[in-house]
Amino acid sequence: MATSPAGAGRPKTRGIVLDHIRAARTISRIELAAVTGVTPATITQVVRELMAHGLVVEVGRGASTGGKPPTLLQLNPHARYAVGVLFERNSCVIVIVDLTGRQVARTSFPGTALLPPEQALSIVASRVEALIGAAGVDRGRVLGVGLATYGPQDRQTGVLLTHQPTAEWFEYPVGPRLSELLGLPVLLDNDAAAAAIGEHWLGAVEQDTFGCLYMASGIGGGVVVDGEVYRGVSSNGVEIGHITIDVNGGRCDCGNYGCLGNYADPSAVIKQALEDSSLGRRLGLDPADTDVMTAFGRVATAAGAGDPAARGLVEGSARHLGTAAVTMASLFDLDLIVLAGPSFAAAGSIYQSVIEEEVQRRTFARRAHPVRVVTSVSGSDAAAIGGAVLVLQSELAFLELDARA
Amino acid sequence: MATSPAGAGRPKTRGIVLDHIRAARTISRIELAAVTGVTPATITQVVRELMAHGLVVEVGRGASTGGKPPTLLQLNPHARYAVGVLFERNSCVIVIVDLTGRQVARTSFPGTALLPPEQALSIVASRVEALIGAAGVDRGRVLGVGLATYGPQDRQTGVLLTHQPTAEWFEYPVGPRLSELLGLPVLLDNDAAAAAIGEHWLGAVEQDTFGCLYMASGIGGGVVVDGEVYRGVSSNGVEIGHITIDVNGGRCDCGNYGCLGNYADPSAVIKQALEDSSLGRRLGLDPADTDVMTAFGRVATAAGAGDPAARGLVEGSARHLGTAAVTMASLFDLDLIVLAGPSFAAAGSIYQSVIEEEVQRRTFARRAHPVRVVTSVSGSDAAAIGGAVLVLQSELAFLELDARA
Repeated sequence: MATSPAGAGRPKTRGIVLDHIRAARTISRIELAAVTGVTPATITQVVRELMAHGLVVEVGRGASTGGKPPTLLQLNPHARYAVGVLFERNSCVIVIVDLTGRQVARTSFPGTALLPPEQALSIVASRVEALIGAAGVDRGRVLGVGLATYGPQDRQTGVLLTHQPTAEWFEYPVGPRLSELLGLPVLLDNDAAAAAIGEHWLGAVEQDTFGCLYMASGIGGGVVVDGEVYRGVSSNGVEIGHITIDVNGGRCDCGNYGCLGNYADPSAVIKQALEDSSLGRRLGLDPADTDVMTAFGRVATAAGAGDPAARGLVEGSARHLGTAAVTMASLFDLDLIVLAGPSFAAAGSIYQSVIEEEVQRRTFARRAHPVRVVTSVSGSDAAAIGGAVLVLQSELAFLELDARA
Repeated sequence: MATSPAGAGRPKTRGIVLDHIRAARTISRIELAAVTGVTPATITQVVRELMAHGLVVEVGRGASTGGKPPTLLQLNPHARYAVGVLFERNSCVIVIVDLTGRQVARTSFPGTALLPPEQALSIVASRVEALIGAAGVDRGRVLGVGLATYGPQDRQTGVLLTHQPTAEWFEYPVGPRLSELLGLPVLLDNDAAAAAIGEHWLGAVEQDTFGCLYMASGIGGGVVVDGEVYRGVSSNGVEIGHITIDVNGGRCDCGNYGCLGNYADPSAVIKQALEDSSLGRRLGLDPADTDVMTAFGRVATAAGAGDPAARGLVEGSARHLGTAAVTMASLFDLDLIVLAGPSFAAAGSIYQSVIEEEVQRRTFARRAHPVRVVTSVSGSDAAAIGGAVLVLQSELAFLELDARA
């Protein structure tokens, strides 16, 4: 797997140039020099190299600014592909994206994380192979796999540092093992961080700095600063589901007290719904059912349809998420928060309006700037797409420009 | 005031070179090229320019690595100076630092922020002039003033966006007005952010990424990432005194609910002390007294001396700060938190041990890495020194290399 730079351009410069071409869709060499701060001579050299290897193509001429109209460049979408996998205990989503980040194939299946790790990863690997085959993608052009899942994790070694969902997963090398099964590089990353960068890359979010609240069966967060994921010291940041919102609250499984998740995540909402026996019956909820996402989907759908009791529970969850969103906005100084992940997708408008109301009236720096809250454009697939995008960002910078073009 | 680049080196490169010479104390040209990633030819050119203007001097030879021993460079401390002002409602601290960040003069006086802005700034300006004079510093070599104070603020325009302590301060142009009075550039910044960068620059913190909890009469925070202050969208981040730790708590003056400050800041501790009439009498606390820092100092001193009631109150404050420190560490993914500011200085060891205990047992990513808590080396002057350091960082990059050397 190519990790060393080759060719004339410094790898970092090459990655920056590719990213600017992607973001602009079409752009001239002279515009590239202006936005990157790289000299026109270096731009010419890097672009020549990228064109020689089929990553960038010329697509006609732009408007003249006096002299000869400049030639426009764009990415060749079919030059490379990346796979993104969202690996959740309740569901698994696999996508393939092209060099521009556009989704070309997708599949999903029920979660495998309650199986032993070896068995679960074998299923994921065979599903990835099948999807590459079905999509007709040249396997030699697949850069790698972004595996988005929960934390804490050791991103460098590709190891999970949690006993969730079972003790077998603790310190299991999910990244290296999946890489071995597929013969492709695998990047392990946080699902919420992946969702955040996915939203940005897809153009849903125009600004370069923003936050993302991510809710599946658990609650996570991601912050993008100047177009890159905020990492902290070990890429285990923005764990907003495990911050204290009630200093008098009970102990959470994570070891902290009064954590947001215990008041606002799908399990908490279902628990509250089951305490209302009339609502529980109305929605056909079964206390013995372990399928959290389906049960939460019923509450969310009923809330959206106007059931007052269901709506009260979803609004309560949203109010608590609003408290945490205020903390996130006040600490990271954000003016935009995106709601992503399947659980927000189920009742997006309620969550959006309640959380926005909270951040607009309570965030410390609201006199410096307002804080907007928007729902994701990629819905429940944000993290899988983001996983693939992180592969593109990481691998393109150090791409070996060899015979694959 | 010089804001445009001059000379051969790109301003950014010049600032990076100066910062590496400072951090290393002494360094050779070849080592500079290695740590900065800048070509040896450019290093030679930038160093020649900096030496010609007296900012950098040669100080003998280092160890040979085979050939001729390399010439070592260091900053000329007397080439430039910067002023730092901590502007608090209860106190004002002014420092002058040399080019290496070493403090060469200091003064402090009771807070002026309850005066009308014009009158308060006149006092600050005359104190700055007097300190420059008393220190025997060449005024022509003073780069500017870093004004560290509370937020929210508009750092770009130098305007405060708060009605604290009085309505007159809201939208008052403190930066431009002080600049006018002194004829020097003035940078407005957050006190806690300034304290964080001050700790880093002084070498108290060896790592490049860490958090800082800052407590004076209020509580703030700063995060340094890769050696620079985390800014967010408007430099109003890490306002940890105004995050919710009790979702059922009362409304804070800031508009949020159950804010940390209301449970843990000096005013909260004094209020609790006054509720214990025996403790209040023992410490000579007066409910009518508005000098928060002196009263808090009495409680903190009694706690340090073993008074059980006083110690209980300080530990309670520390426990709540610990809850917020866990939130900060889990969101920014930190492995080091520095406690800075006068109120921590008063009872540092109690705060340090309680907060460290909380973060070590409750932070989400503690299996990925431990989180240490240390007390500041610069104590109550961290923010003033940091204000001066921010001027050095900002002005040196764009320094006009003219006849001042």
